[in-house]
Amino acid sequence: MSAVDVSPAEAISGEDFVAQYLTVRTTTERLAEPLSAEDQVIQSMDDVSPTKWHRAHVTWFFETFLLPRLDGYEADPTYGYLFNSYYEAVGERHPRPHRGLISRPSVDEVTDYRHRVDEAMIRLLETDVVDDPEFQDLLVLGLNHEQQHQELLLMDIKHVLSSTILQAPYRSSNAPSARFQSAESAPLTWSEFEGGILPVGHDGSGFAFDNEGPRHDVLLRPYRLANRLVTNGDWLEFIADGGYDRAEHWLSDGWHHINRTGWRHPMYWSQSVESDHESWIQYTLDGPVALRLDEPVVHVSYYEADAYARWAGARLPTEFEWESATTSQPVTGNLLPSSNLHPMPAEPEDGLQQLFGDVWEWTASPYVAYPGFAPAPGAVGEYNGKFMIDQQVLRGGCAVTPGGHIRPTYRNFFPAKARWHFGGLRLANDQ
Amino acid sequence: MSAVDVSPAEAISGEDFVAQYLTVRTTTERLAEPLSAEDQVIQSMDDVSPTKWHRAHVTWFFETFLLPRLDGYEADPTYGYLFNSYYEAVGERHPRPHRGLISRPSVDEVTDYRHRVDEAMIRLLETDVVDDPEFQDLLVLGLNHEQQHQELLLMDIKHVLSSTILQAPYRSSNAPSARFQSAESAPLTWSEFEGGILPVGHDGSGFAFDNEGPRHDVLLRPYRLANRLVTNGDWLEFIADGGYDRAEHWLSDGWHHINRTGWRHPMYWSQSVESDHESWIQYTLDGPVALRLDEPVVHVSYYEADAYARWAGARLPTEFEWESATTSQPVTGNLLPSSNLHPMPAEPEDGLQQLFGDVWEWTASPYVAYPGFAPAPGAVGEYNGKFMIDQQVLRGGCAVTPGGHIRPTYRNFFPAKARWHFGGLRLANDQ
Amino acid sequence: MSAVDVSPAEAISGEDFVAQYLTVRTTTERLAEPLSAEDQVIQSMDDVSPTKWHRAHVTWFFETFLLPRLDGYEADPTYGYLFNSYYEAVGERHPRPHRGLISRPSVDEVTDYRHRVDEAMIRLLETDVVDDPEFQDLLVLGLNHEQQHQELLLMDIKHVLSSTILQAPYRSSNAPSARFQSAESAPLTWSEFEGGILPVGHDGSGFAFDNEGPRHDVLLRPYRLANRLVTNGDWLEFIADGGYDRAEHWLSDGWHHINRTGWRHPMYWSQSVESDHESWIQYTLDGPVALRLDEPVVHVSYYEADAYARWAGARLPTEFEWESATTSQPVTGNLLPSSNLHPMPAEPEDGLQQLFGDVWEWTASPYVAYPGFAPAPGAVGEYNGKFMIDQQVLRGGCAVTPGGHIRPTYRNFFPAKARWHFGGLRLANDQ
Amino acid sequence: MSAVDVSPAEAISGEDFVAQYLTVRTTTERLAEPLSAEDQVIQSMDDVSPTKWHRAHVTWFFETFLLPRLDGYEADPTYGYLFNSYYEAVGERHPRPHRGLISRPSVDEVTDYRHRVDEAMIRLLETDVVDDPEFQDLLVLGLNHEQQHQELLLMDIKHVLSSTILQAPYRSSNAPSARFQSAESAPLTWSEFEGGILPVGHDGSGFAFDNEGPRHDVLLRPYRLANRLVTNGDWLEFIADGGYDRAEHWLSDGWHHINRTGWRHPMYWSQSVESDHESWIQYTLDGPVALRLDEPVVHVSYYEADAYARWAGARLPTEFEWESATTSQPVTGNLLPSSNLHPMPAEPEDGLQQLFGDVWEWTASPYVAYPGFAPAPGAVGEYNGKFMIDQQVLRGGCAVTPGGHIRPTYRNFFPAKARWHFGGLRLANDQ
Repeated sequence: MSAVDVSPAEAISGEDFVAQYLTVRTTTERLAEPLSAEDQVIQSMDDVSPTKWHRAHVTWFFETFLLPRLDGYEADPTYGYLFNSYYEAVGERHPRPHRGLISRPSVDEVTDYRHRVDEAMIRLLETDVVDDPEFQDLLVLGLNHEQQHQELLLMDIKHVLSSTILQAPYRSSNAPSARFQSAESAPLTWSEFEGGILPVGHDGSGFAFDNEGPRHDVLLRPYRLANRLVTNGDWLEFIADGGYDRAEHWLSDGWHHINRTGWRHPMYWSQSVESDHESWIQYTLDGPVALRLDEPVVHVSYYEADAYARWAGARLPTEFEWESATTSQPVTGNLLPSSNLHPMPAEPEDGLQQLFGDVWEWTASPYVAYPGFAPAPGAVGEYNGKFMIDQQVLRGGCAVTPGGHIRPTYRNFFPAKARWHFGGLRLANDQ
Repeated sequence: MSAVDVSPAEAISGEDFVAQYLTVRTTTERLAEPLSAEDQVIQSMDDVSPTKWHRAHVTWFFETFLLPRLDGYEADPTYGYLFNSYYEAVGERHPRPHRGLISRPSVDEVTDYRHRVDEAMIRLLETDVVDDPEFQDLLVLGLNHEQQHQELLLMDIKHVLSSTILQAPYRSSNAPSARFQSAESAPLTWSEFEGGILPVGHDGSGFAFDNEGPRHDVLLRPYRLANRLVTNGDWLEFIADGGYDRAEHWLSDGWHHINRTGWRHPMYWSQSVESDHESWIQYTLDGPVALRLDEPVVHVSYYEADAYARWAGARLPTEFEWESATTSQPVTGNLLPSSNLHPMPAEPEDGLQQLFGDVWEWTASPYVAYPGFAPAPGAVGEYNGKFMIDQQVLRGGCAVTPGGHIRPTYRNFFPAKARWHFGGLRLANDQ
Repeated sequence: MSAVDVSPAEAISGEDFVAQYLTVRTTTERLAEPLSAEDQVIQSMDDVSPTKWHRAHVTWFFETFLLPRLDGYEADPTYGYLFNSYYEAVGERHPRPHRGLISRPSVDEVTDYRHRVDEAMIRLLETDVVDDPEFQDLLVLGLNHEQQHQELLLMDIKHVLSSTILQAPYRSSNAPSARFQSAESAPLTWSEFEGGILPVGHDGSGFAFDNEGPRHDVLLRPYRLANRLVTNGDWLEFIADGGYDRAEHWLSDGWHHINRTGWRHPMYWSQSVESDHESWIQYTLDGPVALRLDEPVVHVSYYEADAYARWAGARLPTEFEWESATTSQPVTGNLLPSSNLHPMPAEPEDGLQQLFGDVWEWTASPYVAYPGFAPAPGAVGEYNGKFMIDQQVLRGGCAVTPGGHIRPTYRNFFPAKARWHFGGLRLANDQ
Repeated sequence: MSAVDVSPAEAISGEDFVAQYLTVRTTTERLAEPLSAEDQVIQSMDDVSPTKWHRAHVTWFFETFLLPRLDGYEADPTYGYLFNSYYEAVGERHPRPHRGLISRPSVDEVTDYRHRVDEAMIRLLETDVVDDPEFQDLLVLGLNHEQQHQELLLMDIKHVLSSTILQAPYRSSNAPSARFQSAESAPLTWSEFEGGILPVGHDGSGFAFDNEGPRHDVLLRPYRLANRLVTNGDWLEFIADGGYDRAEHWLSDGWHHINRTGWRHPMYWSQSVESDHESWIQYTLDGPVALRLDEPVVHVSYYEADAYARWAGARLPTEFEWESATTSQPVTGNLLPSSNLHPMPAEPEDGLQQLFGDVWEWTASPYVAYPGFAPAPGAVGEYNGKFMIDQQVLRGGCAVTPGGHIRPTYRNFFPAKARWHFGGLRLANDQ
């Protein structure tokens, strides 16, 4: 089997809804292609969903919110129960921690379900319902929703496959052979920003999630951002300097958490018997590889990112510092279409590197509503607002984020202890 | 797909080891046949193992304890790690509660593994190593071990398939259509036994597990045993009389357990909206069926069995009362070969009914060593002795016990709160 | 015993350190006076500390951070271990959830300990070390620290005494007889604010905790604040309208939390058998009393405050909206010196009522560092910064906050699920 | 304060009920005498009850089961709620794990409660109700019940006082100075017993708990019992030989338990920095003392006792082997009246030593009903029978068992993992 090589998908826009629909739907199936039926069933922790469940849930979204407009279409209420994620307004649902108990429908039946819904959606997209702006909004939301789950599917299957001693790769690939460990990290330099009263949030052109607006002004003081992400090499220095052993670097909750869990390095790292730094192994979607020093560190919690920044005499940027610095930059980077499925070293170039793709960058900003934010009425209003407590904002996308699914205003969010979602960091500081 | 119809297997004995080996091994594969790859991967609670794991683990047993005698055979240490159950002397192993994370080896690879070991075993069984009594003992132990897991496989898959709203049947079958609910339970009568100094335990002819010996005398007072098992109809009377609501019937641990868990009826029972007793539904390996009153109650915990007996003015038999009454009875009954996979009503005949098969009968006896018991040296000595604490003995086999795998001296054991293992009860009393 | 009637303490300032020291120390002892030795030992949940522990811990603070400057003073390391709260830099400590196991030192020995430290402190305060600004800072911090614990002592003992069916009052008092339930809440009106670029944070004159600075500008949009706090009468309407039963009002975490815990009303409320609203009973520090409708609701979590605001078509204020509106208001209200120990109804007057005292007002602001914030070096730097994750800011003090221990810039913080700390709410809205 | 020196109480019998009553009641108060109010309130784990609770609960027993016969006596239902232990038939009760939250009634009020009940009991005992055999039975049960709690009071307060770094002694005493560590254990020899059909259980003369009957015959094979208890010196050899590190010695549940808890030595042992065996410290009711090698090991779980016996090539006795060997022995030993509060070395004499007192001896027998056992009707029937699951029988009393409160037929019982109850062991073997 050849490596997953997702063709460069464009941002979802324009009027050819059928083509857009098929592009997104096909990408999901290509991502699932390397996985056996067994791989697709397993839920390795409460936060993870089985591949099969992702494939069915995104389909259920179209069936539930769009297909009621198609005459004669009838949905199976059992699927509605099994594949609703958290939409309280839509009704009861299968408990999230038990998604790994869903042996049936089988993987093949889920494939059939996808075909059935696709066929109905194509029929619907050929009617004049597509001229209804409300329908268009829901359709584009459904496509972006499926792209979010493409990213989650890869984050989740990485966790599943890492959970036994087999440490099986997600795909067969010759990628790892190209990796080596000797390279030094590019020098860390700082870009300076003036601050001031600056607009943030989505301006309304093109798709955005509700939590990206309303656009509004924020007041920023002068600040600096590091040109590149923190690397594995940087992180080894932190470890060597007792980073995980000294309470002074840590938030109180973080200190208790690392002591309760025994965390002493990023997730997916392990050490072979040799005592020097060359002995570190990192599990990737291509299987275990030697840790490369110049790659961005990934799979660290907010607790760890924050402790590292404090140790380094710096801090994490706020989400608005990040957004203001990024808003005029080209939205390109090491995303899913590049097919690396792993962060890559920074180029030795001037200016801000690695803004989009590679790793989701933890920010110092708790996830709260923007001034004037109001969720949409009805079930889709449950999309974002109800999660606005005890989470931190991350920005910029990562190596498994679909092409076209990232922008300067995009706000991702995870709890401070989460690690499986390709989180990393960039340093900031006051001027 | 037709119903699983396991051909009547004979007791494992005689000299044709190859034929015995193939019979047992084939039965396992027939039991797994109705199950998809997805079904075979899931672990629905810590006590349950995935079908795929059962199939591989029993194979690992032969590979680990017998195939070292075959020149040139090499075992895969990864499989040794994944499929060792609890043999500390053999080495580290995959944690039991995480058996549901083993996506790979795939179901097909496990099938290949079974073929590989079978082929090696057949080769080995054609050498003169089979003349070695120690080898014979291990071989027969391996076959009995696999039969135990056949029973567990069915107990476990029942739990797995019951775990979602689909309530999927294990097999497609016309069996349920033959069931109805109107029949009355056969009248309960008592058989009387004199007691005295009586021998119990295995006498050494034919196979037995180590925990069935040494054979020794016990002193029994006169006692009575009910002619039949307690039925669903009996149980509904217990419920109607507030059986689950009155502390006076219950062991203290049991009372706390049913209040913590909310148990108010046997496992796998549910009620539809109607208010009378006809509304009870029971999940079986053939899917949900209306509760039949004259069938033995099954899937009750020791706590419930004990409370029922106290409520009924009776008690549970000790394991020796049961064994002494049973020792001269024919070892026939509703076992796996009858293909019901569910307990059946008692025949309206005189004398003790339903002794073998139908349900494992909870006894009042904690699971302890017989006088003079000593485990075998080495890893196989871990088979039984190390579990002799905080478990109750059950006797007689059940509807999913393989033919030939039950005898009057057979001691099964489960913790007092266990319910998924086809446990039921027969009343006893003093004279 | 007469009611606790704490004399109006002034803000801690001026140069008479001995007088200030004695005022604060005496207040603590007066608060403990109504409590028996038994009362002072109990820890009713992990968040609660025993009264005895509070009394010893605040003493330990002076002993640890100030008395090293007194020649010849020797601290008992055992006390250092038992009564350190969370200062990692100071060394190992007794585990927080086990503070209720400290039978010894006895209450009398803790009283002796307080006397011993007081005597040493007075001696120290009579030396010229008091001219050292660093010493002054630590002393004032120690006094403010003790005042925080005065408040906590009352919050905690309320929880302790509520934990058995005795529902014992903290003090004997004739206060409850003055309470009745018939009064209507004052009408809710709105005060309007223009917003703009506004300074927030402490300006450096007088004491403030480190988390109140640096002073900096924030950008606020026009907003409105309710003239009074949300009342018990308001809350009963929320309950009657299914407030606790409809997911649409709740944050996702909050919805799960109230369903897991069964919360259906504020903490310390209970219902007698009558069915109308007059049947509600509220446990107070004066024992159980009938719920008075015009009193501010108190002991609600952030989850509940946020859900109420959404149900009411409003929102919670940000901490900066609250501070900007409050900064020019007189710092008076129903605080500890008024000796009510319970929130009081709003006066029927114009303008913002109940800003200081009564209840800590939940704000929509997560607890984060102000721009440029840096903790002090050394152990006292652990005071605030390390708790800046997954907490919400509350403002304004409550009925058990010591006089002089509140100001417009004061930032209190608790996790979203906390309820025992006298939290309530005031509505806000956009203009 | 001088050492607790409980006067030698005689077995509760004869007709002078007032004297017996006062003896038992006074002993309880003497045991509580060294304890402050603070000491008496604390519950250091779910299994432990506060001293104050013990003192009130045993009083409640008399009030509930006997004082209803006294005209005009009125019980406080609040006390009934707080101090009922587990009698379901008597009504609702305060949750067991929250006994440490009962600050009120105070220790002094509990003393008053005891006086109030005592005065009423004395009045009642002077009426002719004492001629009623049923009354006599309940009275004697109440006295034995209080003696059980005297033992528990000491077991529990030992746990409470050990729970902080203070390791405070229960009493001031010069006892520890008499202890030294150099002595060798007496040689281990075996006493042989023929077995046969032997009577066990109480014969009806004098008081016994219901679980000691009915008297019945058991069939025993020839067996041997060690002359003395296993000592600390023996245990150090077990540790040195990797006793806690080798799965082969352990029950499966025990192996998991010691690995989950980290147990590597008996409870209350700790090691100072020196590396040889002289460095072991043992917490006793007289505070920490150097471990004495010839003293019986105490505070081991059944898991540990069973593992030790297997390691030593022996086994634990059954309760009937123990009882048959003991039935003709004098009931004397190191019990509470000897005032040691700690097990003592065996005398260098022939024959079975240390049968009564010193440590409760774990037996291989699960705690089950004797043939024909039926609990008494009503609430007192809840005394023993409802605990007959998942517990092991212990025999012989310990150093804190009241004088007269032990006999050959006495059956104590604890779960396999319990350690705080002065459990130790004597080896047995087949002949």
